[in-house]
Amino acid sequence: MSDALVIGLDIGGTSTRALVATLAGDRVGTGTAGGGNPTSHGAEAAAAELGKALSEALAATDPTRVRAGVIGIAGVARLLADPASRAAFERTWADAGLRCPYEMIGDALVAYASGTASPDGSVLISGTGAIAVTIRGFALDRVSDGHGWLLGDAGSGFWLGREAVRATLAAMDAGRPLGRLSRAVVTTLLHAETSATSVGRGDLGALSARDQVDVLVQRVTRRPAVELAKLAPLVIAAQADGDPTANALVAEAARLLTDSVARIRDPGDPSPIVLAGGLLVGQTPLAAAVERELSARWPDAPRPHASDGAAAAAWLAARPQLTPTEAAALHTRLFP
Amino acid sequence: MSDALVIGLDIGGTSTRALVATLAGDRVGTGTAGGGNPTSHGAEAAAAELGKALSEALAATDPTRVRAGVIGIAGVARLLADPASRAAFERTWADAGLRCPYEMIGDALVAYASGTASPDGSVLISGTGAIAVTIRGFALDRVSDGHGWLLGDAGSGFWLGREAVRATLAAMDAGRPLGRLSRAVVTTLLHAETSATSVGRGDLGALSARDQVDVLVQRVTRRPAVELAKLAPLVIAAQADGDPTANALVAEAARLLTDSVARIRDPGDPSPIVLAGGLLVGQTPLAAAVERELSARWPDAPRPHASDGAAAAAWLAARPQLTPTEAAALHTRLFP
Repeated sequence: MSDALVIGLDIGGTSTRALVATLAGDRVGTGTAGGGNPTSHGAEAAAAELGKALSEALAATDPTRVRAGVIGIAGVARLLADPASRAAFERTWADAGLRCPYEMIGDALVAYASGTASPDGSVLISGTGAIAVTIRGFALDRVSDGHGWLLGDAGSGFWLGREAVRATLAAMDAGRPLGRLSRAVVTTLLHAETSATSVGRGDLGALSARDQVDVLVQRVTRRPAVELAKLAPLVIAAQADGDPTANALVAEAARLLTDSVARIRDPGDPSPIVLAGGLLVGQTPLAAAVERELSARWPDAPRPHASDGAAAAAWLAARPQLTPTEAAALHTRLFP
Repeated sequence: MSDALVIGLDIGGTSTRALVATLAGDRVGTGTAGGGNPTSHGAEAAAAELGKALSEALAATDPTRVRAGVIGIAGVARLLADPASRAAFERTWADAGLRCPYEMIGDALVAYASGTASPDGSVLISGTGAIAVTIRGFALDRVSDGHGWLLGDAGSGFWLGREAVRATLAAMDAGRPLGRLSRAVVTTLLHAETSATSVGRGDLGALSARDQVDVLVQRVTRRPAVELAKLAPLVIAAQADGDPTANALVAEAARLLTDSVARIRDPGDPSPIVLAGGLLVGQTPLAAAVERELSARWPDAPRPHASDGAAAAAWLAARPQLTPTEAAALHTRLFP
């Protein structure tokens, strides 16, 4: 078993990462490629990125030494239901010289395993969308939200961006002076398309109050709704600068995200809650607010942050071959 | 002046109505045609419906006796900015034998004037969308909301429908038994398209909890978002049956609508607040809840309901030719 290897892949919308490691936690190869989700990129393009990441990670290694593989990817159920994507992935896997089977799992489980070695717990993800999942025995147990921007994703980047615009429009309707967040929203929306419209950046002030409102509404509604998520960083920045509207939105987002967890998790459950997604990984104000809310409801639950997804996938590939003590030691080694 | 006539038109998305009346309030002709908004129907089709309503209303009358006309229509600014629509309307007006000029005004002002003869006041409209407007001297003064379903329309039919689905999804995520409203939402969404999908009406129960949620989300997101407004009657019906979720949604919608008015109206203002739109005209539970909220904030303000738009347009056409006392008397006659 000492020379056995495992491989883990984390396939995202903008990048694909691979890690080859020993069961002791030595990293023997890494690979990076572009976004490789068949749903957004097509089966062949996605498989090509997977192949690039695999060949990089396996460049200095005999691929037949790899005993197990895990691929973490969003929308795994949809992918498994698509024969073309499955065939392209299987062919690419074999072409890389790999002889072991691989398991495909959802990105939520990968994010969870990057934060904890506990078989049971929860993961809360807030990025463009938002979802909470409970995990039991390293398998998905229950899911809350993830319903998409029209019906859900409460407390997500989309939600923050939309609420920032709504607060700005309400202030303009009321004729109130615009605060820091609202001024940033107006500036960003006017900059967003200076060529495609007759109202340029500088001349909003020349319009009546109602026409200003109409211009902003048009700027948003002419583009895909999900692009409202791009305004989320304005909320985070304005909150750090003490803007009261941004502060209220961050607090409300934290409350909504915590409500989402509470829907599928028992009060007092001491198992870990992993924080994941662009808005919760790192020391963001939203992460801090969410941690406060979570600690109030589940005071005994650790709240680790998600980290390296490829390492988490490799760890999940190794875990069935290890005792619980060995698995915990490997996790500590991979996520120091 | 005794044989002078006025004409009023109320052009909506699904019908066009015309009224010819004397300055004393005698109705001398009415006309009805299909939806006539150039924005949704095209300039020529809209003008054809206008022509049908005009010729019906003027069938028994010498059109040269008509001294003034008002056309109430949604999106009047957009219409006035479109030369083709303006030309088609002007030609149709002349073809009907009318020699007087006409004024085009927004549907909010028409709704307002159908509820009150006061030159200053507010009108609150909740239908598919939602908007509040203050009126000063029978002209638009300030506007609140009307920002469309993505960014606004708080308390509208769209809002009620979306929140009904959101409450249903939250209950399903939490594994709670579904109440009356949520059961109605599930049944309606599954009935909505039985042929175009592999999951028919009866077999939702065969799916896992998460798959049930996914099916409902897909049923909504595959169709135009604004169709969520079609679920609003389910909320109204469930509220009448005592469903607590529906009750909370109706109360919240009433609060949001009242907030919208408060953004553009001074506290204690005693001028009338006209209730308009499909969700507020008539004795609906939402109208009752809105009246309670409005009376708490503006206890001295009358709260009339909007009624006949064509009569309101005719009254607005007559008003400049009358003393305030005569105008008030004509209003009482037209809206008994």
